[in-house]
Amino acid sequence: MTRIAICGALGRMGTTIANLINDADDLTFAGGVDIREGTLLGQPVYPSTEINTFLQEIKPDVLIDFTIAHAAVENIVAGAAAGVALVVGTTGFSPEQRSRIDEAIEGSVPAVISSNYSVGMNIFWRLVREAAQRLGDYDIEVTEAHHRYKKDAPSGTARTILEIIGEETGKTECMYGREGMTERKDEIGVHVIRGGDIVGDHTVLFAANNETIELSHRAYDRAVFAHGVIRAARFVTGKAPGIYTMDDVLGL
Amino acid sequence: MTRIAICGALGRMGTTIANLINDADDLTFAGGVDIREGTLLGQPVYPSTEINTFLQEIKPDVLIDFTIAHAAVENIVAGAAAGVALVVGTTGFSPEQRSRIDEAIEGSVPAVISSNYSVGMNIFWRLVREAAQRLGDYDIEVTEAHHRYKKDAPSGTARTILEIIGEETGKTECMYGREGMTERKDEIGVHVIRGGDIVGDHTVLFAANNETIELSHRAYDRAVFAHGVIRAARFVTGKAPGIYTMDDVLGL
Amino acid sequence: MTRIAICGALGRMGTTIANLINDADDLTFAGGVDIREGTLLGQPVYPSTEINTFLQEIKPDVLIDFTIAHAAVENIVAGAAAGVALVVGTTGFSPEQRSRIDEAIEGSVPAVISSNYSVGMNIFWRLVREAAQRLGDYDIEVTEAHHRYKKDAPSGTARTILEIIGEETGKTECMYGREGMTERKDEIGVHVIRGGDIVGDHTVLFAANNETIELSHRAYDRAVFAHGVIRAARFVTGKAPGIYTMDDVLGL
Amino acid sequence: MTRIAICGALGRMGTTIANLINDADDLTFAGGVDIREGTLLGQPVYPSTEINTFLQEIKPDVLIDFTIAHAAVENIVAGAAAGVALVVGTTGFSPEQRSRIDEAIEGSVPAVISSNYSVGMNIFWRLVREAAQRLGDYDIEVTEAHHRYKKDAPSGTARTILEIIGEETGKTECMYGREGMTERKDEIGVHVIRGGDIVGDHTVLFAANNETIELSHRAYDRAVFAHGVIRAARFVTGKAPGIYTMDDVLGL
Repeated sequence: MTRIAICGALGRMGTTIANLINDADDLTFAGGVDIREGTLLGQPVYPSTEINTFLQEIKPDVLIDFTIAHAAVENIVAGAAAGVALVVGTTGFSPEQRSRIDEAIEGSVPAVISSNYSVGMNIFWRLVREAAQRLGDYDIEVTEAHHRYKKDAPSGTARTILEIIGEETGKTECMYGREGMTERKDEIGVHVIRGGDIVGDHTVLFAANNETIELSHRAYDRAVFAHGVIRAARFVTGKAPGIYTMDDVLGL
Repeated sequence: MTRIAICGALGRMGTTIANLINDADDLTFAGGVDIREGTLLGQPVYPSTEINTFLQEIKPDVLIDFTIAHAAVENIVAGAAAGVALVVGTTGFSPEQRSRIDEAIEGSVPAVISSNYSVGMNIFWRLVREAAQRLGDYDIEVTEAHHRYKKDAPSGTARTILEIIGEETGKTECMYGREGMTERKDEIGVHVIRGGDIVGDHTVLFAANNETIELSHRAYDRAVFAHGVIRAARFVTGKAPGIYTMDDVLGL
Repeated sequence: MTRIAICGALGRMGTTIANLINDADDLTFAGGVDIREGTLLGQPVYPSTEINTFLQEIKPDVLIDFTIAHAAVENIVAGAAAGVALVVGTTGFSPEQRSRIDEAIEGSVPAVISSNYSVGMNIFWRLVREAAQRLGDYDIEVTEAHHRYKKDAPSGTARTILEIIGEETGKTECMYGREGMTERKDEIGVHVIRGGDIVGDHTVLFAANNETIELSHRAYDRAVFAHGVIRAARFVTGKAPGIYTMDDVLGL
Repeated sequence: MTRIAICGALGRMGTTIANLINDADDLTFAGGVDIREGTLLGQPVYPSTEINTFLQEIKPDVLIDFTIAHAAVENIVAGAAAGVALVVGTTGFSPEQRSRIDEAIEGSVPAVISSNYSVGMNIFWRLVREAAQRLGDYDIEVTEAHHRYKKDAPSGTARTILEIIGEETGKTECMYGREGMTERKDEIGVHVIRGGDIVGDHTVLFAANNETIELSHRAYDRAVFAHGVIRAARFVTGKAPGIYTMDDVLGL
């Protein structure tokens, strides 16, 4: 039995993942950490300030993190120091934060880091790369839509899309909103829709010469991410130290 | 024969309208005004600084304006002073500019003013009003897409959509682009896509409670606006002084 | 406490509704009927052939039916005879089946009957009616998408959309799929997409004159229907005999 | 100067192409053939029964065909016999018709044959192939939309999409419309929307596991196809006999 702990256990993703862990024969939900203290599925949820105590007392095999950037850095550093395998779904790290994470992990523990754990999104990214390679001279605009409570903009998934487009086309300047007199140059327009309970839509538009090509991904249920997280948790257990991606997990 | 002149004659809309006028049995294209001097369909195009000379020499029955806000104000004031019926498609007027226009027209000449001359858009606005009345507690986001050369953002058509939503829901705060840590409140998100040759798409999203409702309008050809302008030009001829809308022209 | 029973208790909608009932302070899940015998949330599920025995032994206040047409007719007739208030979400009744239902209910029990219990869809239908009234000379096409296991085509919700369009435009002929040499006349094209876990999308396209207007509704979670069913169950309790719609429930 | 003739000269595509030819410095519109006799841009249009007389008298360097399948076969056979290079945009050939075409061309003349001449669509097909390779276990549905006068269903472009999906996934069974009780198996659903003036939309939906991926192409103006035809006409002039695709023309 692999004992799995969750940072951000009482959030939307945390509870969805914990339920899936409980349904699996080979996994146990060992407890969690959250800004709100409490219990989840009969297991303790520690306050996020006590991540070290939590790790010593609960001794999980895998630590899953779905929190926010600055909290995630602390959890990852603590987990790596404690020798716990990591699955990181938190996004929005600054370059400095990302360096600290990479340093903590390298040589210490195996970790899967991805901005999106759905199988479909990982394939979608490949299609976006293929399209960007061939349509680099088209105007490109990225739109994402999420529920009204999502705090960061754009989504980590959209940031990965923008990175891919930048790598393939050299276009790295983004325009977050146009208002007043504007002139489109070679920037990528980025549009962040927030409303209702939208689980997660991402669209890349390529426009030129009286035609447009659009690639869209839509998630209908947070379970689609949670299932990928579970696959990553199984994958990471017992791997050599280092950073893995969902491409590794999925064998893409 | 109704003699029609166009301000902005050499622009995309101007040339499309001039061609339609030439194809009509009851209308003549009498000449135009533009920032670029020249000729169009055999008729003279005066520099925009010479609008008064143009009106005296050409003596049109109707003056159509598709320019930009500050130029349009001068053209409208000059046209009204010369007693010429007006059809105004220019958008983006400030409240002050709009007051000057209203004053110039009232009691002097008949004028149709609309931010969008397509029949479908005028019906679309009615559907948006109906939806906003009933879905006022949903999160609302407006997206519009136009060709890469469009200068004002959002489109005049989108501004009309925002006015309608404001009137029906009381929501008048707009958010033009989200980036970084954000918290959605009761604002209307407004998303301006620019790319390729997109003629004009407008979408209103209502999101809440695990469901979304979307209303979309798409124009495939600028001709759809030009046809409405021609209808407005025929309508306005000989009407009593005052400001008319496309609802009047279409009898909606 | 209102005691509520469900026909089709072990189906997707049945279990979703039963869970919501259990979460409500004023409602109790009293048991169910299904083609598969069993238990649900600790309550008995009778085989569907024993609907009469079930009603005598369980004595529910309200009977909710989400089964298939021929089974639903039997359940409704039995429920009405037993004096139980009804909430019917089953669709696809033939005119004969519908007559039998109406006859059984009239003068006996209160019943809410709707092809879609989401609040948004009931408002969407109003928008479709409004649009059809004004865009009756446009070409109209209806597309719906549901999960790969949905058996009836088109959805009951789409049938209601087609009825509304027919009432407003007189267009009642439908074309379910075009292949080979075809000629579009005044028919409504109906397109039924089946795939994955799509919860329920419905789109009405109006196309003409270089422009299109689209109205779309998307459900992200079956809960959106279940919540409406719960509202209908509360509404129907203690009402005068007769057939009510979701417009009555929602006070639209 | 390359002298170019058009079969189907008076159709939508024919006139669009003829105008582009006239605008080009290196090309001349030499005349055409159509079911309606007449003239176009000052050049003669022969009745389609007189294709051989036309070829003898006009002696074009390149013959472009945008007609319908049975007529195109005759034009191609005649053109190949007369040693004229060919650009074929007609679609909907039966396997027998296609064999006759291939036979006539091989060893005689160079010919470009494509079901869609837009640059974007040729890249879109590559993206569809890439997606089908990776998402072969998803449910796949293809939707296309065209103007109300289009006669063949589905479009030749959609047929090419279905061929690509078949090659990559082995799924070759298509379902053109679902009505009544249906059960989705491994078929490809094909949905043909006809309405208004829609120039040409094609969408491929991949659905599974609470997520969907969609690839869409939209043409805004027939000019996008005509420009590709002109490129093909320039490419084919002076090439060795044989059949070429738009991939060859575009150097993809």
